[in-house]
Amino acid sequence: MTEVEAKKPQESLQVRLAQVVELLQRHKVVENLTHRQEGINHGRVENLVHRQNLAELQRKLDELHSADVAHILEALPLDDRLTVWQLVKAERDGDILLEVSDAVRETLLADMDDHEILAAAREMDADELADLASELPRDVVHELMETLDAQQRERVRSALSYEDDQVGALMDFEMVTIREDVSLEVVLRYLRRLKELPGHTDKLFVVDYDGVLKGVLPVKRLLVNDPDKQVSEVMATDPVSFHPDEDAYVAAQAFERYDLISSPVVDKNGKLIGRLTIDEMVDLIREESESEVLNMAGLREEEDIFASVWKSLRNRWAWLAVNLVTAFMASRVIGLFEGSIEKLVALAALMPIVAGIGGNSGNQTITMIVRAMALDQVTTGNTSRLIRKELGVGLVNGIVWGGVIGVVAYLLYDSWSLGVVMTAAMTLNLLLAAMMGVLIPMTLVRLGRDPAMGASVMITAVTDSGGFFIFLGLASIFLL
Amino acid sequence: MTEVEAKKPQESLQVRLAQVVELLQRHKVVENLTHRQEGINHGRVENLVHRQNLAELQRKLDELHSADVAHILEALPLDDRLTVWQLVKAERDGDILLEVSDAVRETLLADMDDHEILAAAREMDADELADLASELPRDVVHELMETLDAQQRERVRSALSYEDDQVGALMDFEMVTIREDVSLEVVLRYLRRLKELPGHTDKLFVVDYDGVLKGVLPVKRLLVNDPDKQVSEVMATDPVSFHPDEDAYVAAQAFERYDLISSPVVDKNGKLIGRLTIDEMVDLIREESESEVLNMAGLREEEDIFASVWKSLRNRWAWLAVNLVTAFMASRVIGLFEGSIEKLVALAALMPIVAGIGGNSGNQTITMIVRAMALDQVTTGNTSRLIRKELGVGLVNGIVWGGVIGVVAYLLYDSWSLGVVMTAAMTLNLLLAAMMGVLIPMTLVRLGRDPAMGASVMITAVTDSGGFFIFLGLASIFLL
Repeated sequence: MTEVEAKKPQESLQVRLAQVVELLQRHKVVENLTHRQEGINHGRVENLVHRQNLAELQRKLDELHSADVAHILEALPLDDRLTVWQLVKAERDGDILLEVSDAVRETLLADMDDHEILAAAREMDADELADLASELPRDVVHELMETLDAQQRERVRSALSYEDDQVGALMDFEMVTIREDVSLEVVLRYLRRLKELPGHTDKLFVVDYDGVLKGVLPVKRLLVNDPDKQVSEVMATDPVSFHPDEDAYVAAQAFERYDLISSPVVDKNGKLIGRLTIDEMVDLIREESESEVLNMAGLREEEDIFASVWKSLRNRWAWLAVNLVTAFMASRVIGLFEGSIEKLVALAALMPIVAGIGGNSGNQTITMIVRAMALDQVTTGNTSRLIRKELGVGLVNGIVWGGVIGVVAYLLYDSWSLGVVMTAAMTLNLLLAAMMGVLIPMTLVRLGRDPAMGASVMITAVTDSGGFFIFLGLASIFLL
Repeated sequence: MTEVEAKKPQESLQVRLAQVVELLQRHKVVENLTHRQEGINHGRVENLVHRQNLAELQRKLDELHSADVAHILEALPLDDRLTVWQLVKAERDGDILLEVSDAVRETLLADMDDHEILAAAREMDADELADLASELPRDVVHELMETLDAQQRERVRSALSYEDDQVGALMDFEMVTIREDVSLEVVLRYLRRLKELPGHTDKLFVVDYDGVLKGVLPVKRLLVNDPDKQVSEVMATDPVSFHPDEDAYVAAQAFERYDLISSPVVDKNGKLIGRLTIDEMVDLIREESESEVLNMAGLREEEDIFASVWKSLRNRWAWLAVNLVTAFMASRVIGLFEGSIEKLVALAALMPIVAGIGGNSGNQTITMIVRAMALDQVTTGNTSRLIRKELGVGLVNGIVWGGVIGVVAYLLYDSWSLGVVMTAAMTLNLLLAAMMGVLIPMTLVRLGRDPAMGASVMITAVTDSGGFFIFLGLASIFLL
């Protein structure tokens, strides 16, 4: 896609979104009027106002950067979203489709016919096509591939052959390559002949005649060095590079750590096949953090906030069902002690406190550990240390807060032994929460799963069932 | 700080961390041996092995990029961390201090004397100094400021005058400025005289004689255009720029949206005063997502995973205390219905299911809404639509899952009216969860707070107390 230098927006995104919503609102009011009066006359005046509103909206949209239009589309309910989508100039369709979230893209594509989709896709680069291919109708993809030249087709195929989380799926092919045995002067003249450089070109890739990467020439060095020098004297050898089958998230961490802007991707023979750029990596970092949040809350994937109720249900049901099972198990634990509760009904009122504090504390621990694992700070060597520390925190919390609530229980029910049982149960449940808060994410990782996956649901299951069992069990032994 | 082109690490970070840990382990084993034998002889052999181990560790560390050393320090328990820290060459101290997390930096600074801190700080740029100033001993900062020249001192002061979340606190001062009335040839010659360009220089800033920003000259355009052209012909006017008192997170979103690498910061008269770069923005995006995760779990701030138990407690107590109060309230709600529970003890076993599913569902909703708010997708105009959608999801979930659990309750306790009450209570509590899942973060924002702040604790409080009240209330009315 062609690149435009972004201009400073006059208003904040919030303000621009509000403006579009207002124009849409006016448009709908007029439309309703027109419909109602259709029987009487043709509502010519209203029709005119109607068209003026849409024209103003269109002007507004034309001024906006594609990324901003994408943002506005994401923030609109479906009907308004499609009204706006139809007003967007056809040649911008491709850019905008690439910017919106997957969930919203689906709704936009559903509104386009094959002809429109083809037109939008034709403007795209090979890596962008590959990103979208899985979401396009099959015959459109087929037709599209036929219009590509051999090299482009090969690139799309190659990008499609990698998993979403591999470097190969995120690389692009817009590289400027040079030879090492020429002078910087020659390089400068070569660049001038190109007329335009790809975005994020902070370095040129130095390759030999077989296409094997020999080094990189940072543009910074090209600019400050004597033009008579050879590329080989100035280039950086042994730069950070990636293989297409590496984990993309590891690459993103390297970009973050070493402050990279672009980086070469080479195959196992050292041949340059593509490059990674910081913009893709930023998107990936954002997505990773988001999926951590979503996973912990038991949501399967990102959700269009205006998704239909049915789509939202599908996204949320998996973990709700798990939660239902675990809640039922906790309920059966209580069922075991119905006799005790009948004798001492205060137990029913106090037991959720033990379970609740355990859940909160366990969630704190598991959040900490999941984060440390995402940052690669947890090794097998320090697991026992982590558990010891969390157990320490749990013990102090149990004694202090358990003590407080024990005193409160004594005051409420005038039974010091009930207070002691309360304190003991709180302490034991917090120790259980600490232990499982460390062990659950570690076990998930050992099973090859995402450590954040439903972490919150699982730790709560343990602290609920465990809390009820510990408290009611202690009470049955010592109080009855 | 000087910039080094990052080299491709031979091993993954995990592997390198494991290597350091192993060397440390060997070092400690030998040290223990030496101590034990001290009474008998001087353990000369062991001392030699000891020194060899440390030398090998030091060699290993010298090869690593500062960011990688920082990562290893973060992943080590305190005693090992300080052993490694003492092995790091003094001239790298500054770089590494800037890379580690705040919590870990505190432990490293505590291990340095004023002299060492001063030496490390002298290598830093004004913006880096400002970042660190709040954590350094007062007299060190004072002494440091005196060694700076007037311009540097002014820059540090200016950076310190902004809040952490303002653009002014994140900008740096390493800009290359040019005039608009010169040719590109002149610009190229000027750059060559500079010998080195600042990192992330993807554009040069065009200013007039008063320092007012007239435009930017992207390096890409400098390279592809005819050197005889004037800067004014080639530059981009009206580029994306920021004010120092703008919200840094809004700037980070703009970097993400418009794929920026660097961007000028201007004061209210349009005078260029600094620049923002993508590396700072990536860090900010990461921090924002992390604080969202931490806040939702009720953690106040990032925690060094090897922090002392005492420090961890301080980080976690605030929300645990809140949780204790809310759990106590839920307990009192149950207390109101002790009479009902005495008559029908099954209520005690079933009530946590109602509360638990409500909590899980409410957490899903609140996570969705907090995310949408972070992405600026929620306006006052679409609140009622969001609530309607979430209520719809809650209603279907209540009828379906509530129905399932109602049938189970009927089978277990052989009472169809108990089953119906269960289904009704589940449905009502899920509707409550949906409503509050939208309203809690919105209210927090209206109060000027972070919408994620303790979101999980608060929604659970509502669904617990609410769930118990609804279920026990309905049961008291219809079953007893």
